Amino acid sequence: MPRKIHLALHPYGVGGPGQHGLWRDPRIAKNASIDIRYYIRQAQLAEQALFDALFIVDSQFINSTYPAHYLNRLEPLTLLSAVAVHTTHLGLVGTASSTYNSPFNLARRFASLDHISGGRAGWNVVTSFDTGTSRNYGLDEHLDYATRYGRALESVQVIRGLWDSYEDDAFPADVERNVFLDPTKLHALDHVGEHFRVAGPLNLSRSPQGQPVIFQAGVSEEGRNLAAEVAEGIYAPGGSLEQAREYYADIKRRTAAAGRDPDHIKIFIHGGPIVGATDAAAREREREIFAEDNDFERNLALLGRGFGAHDFSQYDPDGPFPDVAHLAERGGRTGAAKIVERARRENLTLRQVVDSATEFKQSPFVGSPQTVADTIETWFEAGTFDGINLAFRTEEELTYFADGVVPLLQKRGLFRTEYEADTLRGHLGLPIPANRYTRVSVG
Amino acid sequence: MPRKIHLALHPYGVGGPGQHGLWRDPRIAKNASIDIRYYIRQAQLAEQALFDALFIVDSQFINSTYPAHYLNRLEPLTLLSAVAVHTTHLGLVGTASSTYNSPFNLARRFASLDHISGGRAGWNVVTSFDTGTSRNYGLDEHLDYATRYGRALESVQVIRGLWDSYEDDAFPADVERNVFLDPTKLHALDHVGEHFRVAGPLNLSRSPQGQPVIFQAGVSEEGRNLAAEVAEGIYAPGGSLEQAREYYADIKRRTAAAGRDPDHIKIFIHGGPIVGATDAAAREREREIFAEDNDFERNLALLGRGFGAHDFSQYDPDGPFPDVAHLAERGGRTGAAKIVERARRENLTLRQVVDSATEFKQSPFVGSPQTVADTIETWFEAGTFDGINLAFRTEEELTYFADGVVPLLQKRGLFRTEYEADTLRGHLGLPIPANRYTRVSVG
Repeated sequence: MPRKIHLALHPYGVGGPGQHGLWRDPRIAKNASIDIRYYIRQAQLAEQALFDALFIVDSQFINSTYPAHYLNRLEPLTLLSAVAVHTTHLGLVGTASSTYNSPFNLARRFASLDHISGGRAGWNVVTSFDTGTSRNYGLDEHLDYATRYGRALESVQVIRGLWDSYEDDAFPADVERNVFLDPTKLHALDHVGEHFRVAGPLNLSRSPQGQPVIFQAGVSEEGRNLAAEVAEGIYAPGGSLEQAREYYADIKRRTAAAGRDPDHIKIFIHGGPIVGATDAAAREREREIFAEDNDFERNLALLGRGFGAHDFSQYDPDGPFPDVAHLAERGGRTGAAKIVERARRENLTLRQVVDSATEFKQSPFVGSPQTVADTIETWFEAGTFDGINLAFRTEEELTYFADGVVPLLQKRGLFRTEYEADTLRGHLGLPIPANRYTRVSVG
Repeated sequence: MPRKIHLALHPYGVGGPGQHGLWRDPRIAKNASIDIRYYIRQAQLAEQALFDALFIVDSQFINSTYPAHYLNRLEPLTLLSAVAVHTTHLGLVGTASSTYNSPFNLARRFASLDHISGGRAGWNVVTSFDTGTSRNYGLDEHLDYATRYGRALESVQVIRGLWDSYEDDAFPADVERNVFLDPTKLHALDHVGEHFRVAGPLNLSRSPQGQPVIFQAGVSEEGRNLAAEVAEGIYAPGGSLEQAREYYADIKRRTAAAGRDPDHIKIFIHGGPIVGATDAAAREREREIFAEDNDFERNLALLGRGFGAHDFSQYDPDGPFPDVAHLAERGGRTGAAKIVERARRENLTLRQVVDSATEFKQSPFVGSPQTVADTIETWFEAGTFDGINLAFRTEEELTYFADGVVPLLQKRGLFRTEYEADTLRGHLGLPIPANRYTRVSVG
């Protein structure tokens, strides 16, 4: 069977990064980011278009300069649980920090979502990198890189252990023999590690997909190794076709080196497609959007997030880029180290750095439906992704993509024409993990 | 307006304490406790009957002797979020431990449920008392009483502070002036206390009810004081009419002493009504249930929960009640200290203690619809409760109560005949807390 493209929807309501002016759009409800009906509607449209999943990102720290959507938004697990009972097939991936949640609580909440959705849950593991967030959890400083990634790895291992607490046939519920639970099929993890001690067992059985799917967004060395070790889905950093191809090959190589099947890690790139009736119309729209969103003050705040919520407004924007190299390790995800390096190499001012950083937000998928489908195919065949995480500005853009681009991908055999599975693992072609305690009979 | 009775539903699926054999009932789906459709159905029936709220209890530790429902159950917040989008008026009260959750995460999750439900969320604050639970969170021993209650109080205070992060008019979303957020209406808490340091602000605005309703279940001295200080709803321990009256008066007195309006704390007692066509039929059913559930081994395990999950199966059941007084402080909620005292006074064996402990589980509300309505009225007029937390064994029992007892209470003016509010605060007659940062203009 030829490889197919996976599509996820990444809804931003009143406007995320690079969408600063979006809340002004008359088609956007001003409270979309806290209105569950907005998310249910988006999810139902994504499901009609046969998408693999809804992808909900998250953050825990704000200040008043942040994008509208960040300022006021629902917590991902409660959000997805509500969406779960108004959808039937769509995967539901939620972001949660392994740094600021205990493994036992995370294991329960994702297992619970997995049951509520009938096997459609995914966990996007993040480690939270900024001082602002750490100060919401009793720490003055964020944890360092190595500690965060060590914790993340151990957290995933513990949580997977807890998800196996019950073997699949643990509950015979046999009235005649008066046996509800077979106690030999219930297992305490008794984990003692560097970062966590967790006894277990978890008070929740496995869902139809065995365990929720693990997503991650590894960019740094530590992040890539973590991904290769445990991730089944990746939210990749993007960039040019060449950069995406290198990243894709690197992750698949590391996954194989870790002893895993490289096909069991699905790499998603970000795509904010801009589709118009013609290529020219789409390019014109792209220019409009760029002009609308090019708010220097907000871009400055976004840049600061990558440096541990550093306040760049204290510097002269037309002076040399300040010496913040020591803050760059915190922003692995946002390429902070690369920004510092480039600013030094090219001798840029702060304003030049801010303006050039927004270039990276540009989507490769701009044009008529035909052009966008062609570009998607080119990138896919070039080995740059397994799936695209799609962010649209409005519902009209989403339906335009679903009605215009998706049928072209289907005609080329690149996208499903109906759901062939009921679970997220099923959609992504990922195996159901065997329960670690179940003895396989050799026959 | 005369005082009205509040009713909450407390669903147990395959069987909670005192319902050990329930999973055997052919009318009970064997996986009810992990089937969201079961909860949605129960909630919709409760809403048809105009109940105030659905009340979801919780625990984080199990062993194989625990009641069927405990062994395998959904996490309360994900559960309630799914129920929220299939109901319109019912309050949604979820249990979460202030001992094993960070205030920032709790604040977000309950605020998120409050938005998803349009102002119907409540938080039942518990402190988790057993060693089994502490071992799922990296501790070898549970925290002591004073620490747990100190943490609980500070946790509620911090969370209420975070819930006020945005003033109610913080988001003008004024396109003409290009102002989404009014930054002067966003406030960081900057809390530094004995147990927590939390900077804030929370990234979520207030719901139509201002803040979720705080429930608590104070029994011990510390618990009662905590309740008087912060609770707006109480899950009372029950007992005889006289005991319930004393408890009710004590809590109202302490609440007034804490400078609060005693009418702003609603006291719920537990009621597992057994309603039959006649008093005799109901009594017969009560005997059947008692016989069904009188499983010595499971009652022994339940007794152990009150003593920090102590294993009582190691003792001779017909020997004297063992010396476990030192473990009793852990079980404030379950009256462990009283059990020890009574065993000593009456010189009881372990078996006698187990058998007599089950007496306390008996409901005062047994009989024909007329008799049950009479008893409810008598208890209500005697000042024993503001509301009843109703647990039924089957859906048939719930509808029999809704169709038989509720109309009698309505005829007597003791229960609403339609919803007069859309929020949980509205149903309970609780005020909307003023935002602490909003300046009230004196005019």
